[in-house]
Amino acid sequence: MRGLFITLEGPEGAGKTTNRAYLAEQLQAQGFRVTLTREPGGTALAEQIREILLAPHDEPMAVDTELLLMFAARAQHLAQVIVPALAEGHIVICDRFTDATYAYQGGGRGLDCSRIAVLEHFVQGDLRPDLTLLFDLPVAAGLARAAARGQLDRFEQEQQNFFEAVRQAYLQRAKNDPERFRLVDAQLSLPEVQKSLDIYLKEIMERAGEH
Amino acid sequence: MRGLFITLEGPEGAGKTTNRAYLAEQLQAQGFRVTLTREPGGTALAEQIREILLAPHDEPMAVDTELLLMFAARAQHLAQVIVPALAEGHIVICDRFTDATYAYQGGGRGLDCSRIAVLEHFVQGDLRPDLTLLFDLPVAAGLARAAARGQLDRFEQEQQNFFEAVRQAYLQRAKNDPERFRLVDAQLSLPEVQKSLDIYLKEIMERAGEH
Repeated sequence: MRGLFITLEGPEGAGKTTNRAYLAEQLQAQGFRVTLTREPGGTALAEQIREILLAPHDEPMAVDTELLLMFAARAQHLAQVIVPALAEGHIVICDRFTDATYAYQGGGRGLDCSRIAVLEHFVQGDLRPDLTLLFDLPVAAGLARAAARGQLDRFEQEQQNFFEAVRQAYLQRAKNDPERFRLVDAQLSLPEVQKSLDIYLKEIMERAGEH
Repeated sequence: MRGLFITLEGPEGAGKTTNRAYLAEQLQAQGFRVTLTREPGGTALAEQIREILLAPHDEPMAVDTELLLMFAARAQHLAQVIVPALAEGHIVICDRFTDATYAYQGGGRGLDCSRIAVLEHFVQGDLRPDLTLLFDLPVAAGLARAAARGQLDRFEQEQQNFFEAVRQAYLQRAKNDPERFRLVDAQLSLPEVQKSLDIYLKEIMERAGEH
């Protein structure tokens, strides 16, 4: 018995947090056991690593350092939360996972994706999400929503071309793996987004039932 | 022009800090430019990662997390301190480096050394220390000296058999790579230790002169 591993991907301001709660409620109402979590973070120790990642520093963070910290937090999150929850048959819904590393560090920072793949294999072995919902949003719209929330973290302080590259990397990954990815148009109104999520919820429930 | 990369290895209480200062003084007196540093840490950001590594946590730290944090700190230290200093022709003397990872995470925690080698190659490429001074000390003697210093960190709280495994891993690495390693008997009195260091200092000066 193994649960189902669902990841939500996309930029800040795309509605991942709101809709993560919606997905959980719908699934729990049907009797599924759900674990909600997020990256980077998901455990007390991983959140400490998240703080180092997100805080602005006087010293420039080396690209390798950022990548290794991401995967250090991920290793902890997997060991403490994701793997045990899947083993107990939970549907794990995780706000960002390794696709975000490919999008932000690979697409955004221009890091060679083969280097990301080394660490992905190192930390995850063969574990991959069963289904990934990509909340897609034009860059300007996402930035406007994120800015409205207040102070920007180290990633949110990046320039528009950084976020364009992130978006394109996400879309390219979705295109390369249509079996796993489902696209959500995050420009739509919340009721419209949730209507599209209802279709994916049906699929999730069917697949979770099979496990 | 590239400097010389010297690492000091061995357990707490073996006199690495005292003798690191001695080595630096002797080299500087002869006109060599020296950069003194330590791991984990060596930059403000890497020291923040060091704090997470050394602090006791309520949550058990996954072995992979510990290893990735070590190499995250190392990547930052290399980018900010070691590589630039070597490029400027400095003699870099570093208190602990990757041999410590093999000794503590490999020997002590029993982690597969091939996994450490993956990250060593990932972060360092072909960069290795030019010379490594291993301060060797029986476990009981090192623990007694470390305990006399006060509160123990997360590693110092390990049991005696952990430290035995660390010591044996260090000695095995020295045996496998006699070209790079020099053994220092840290049980000797300080004047005797420094007398043995004087021989290695001569070698270091000769090699630094050639660079």
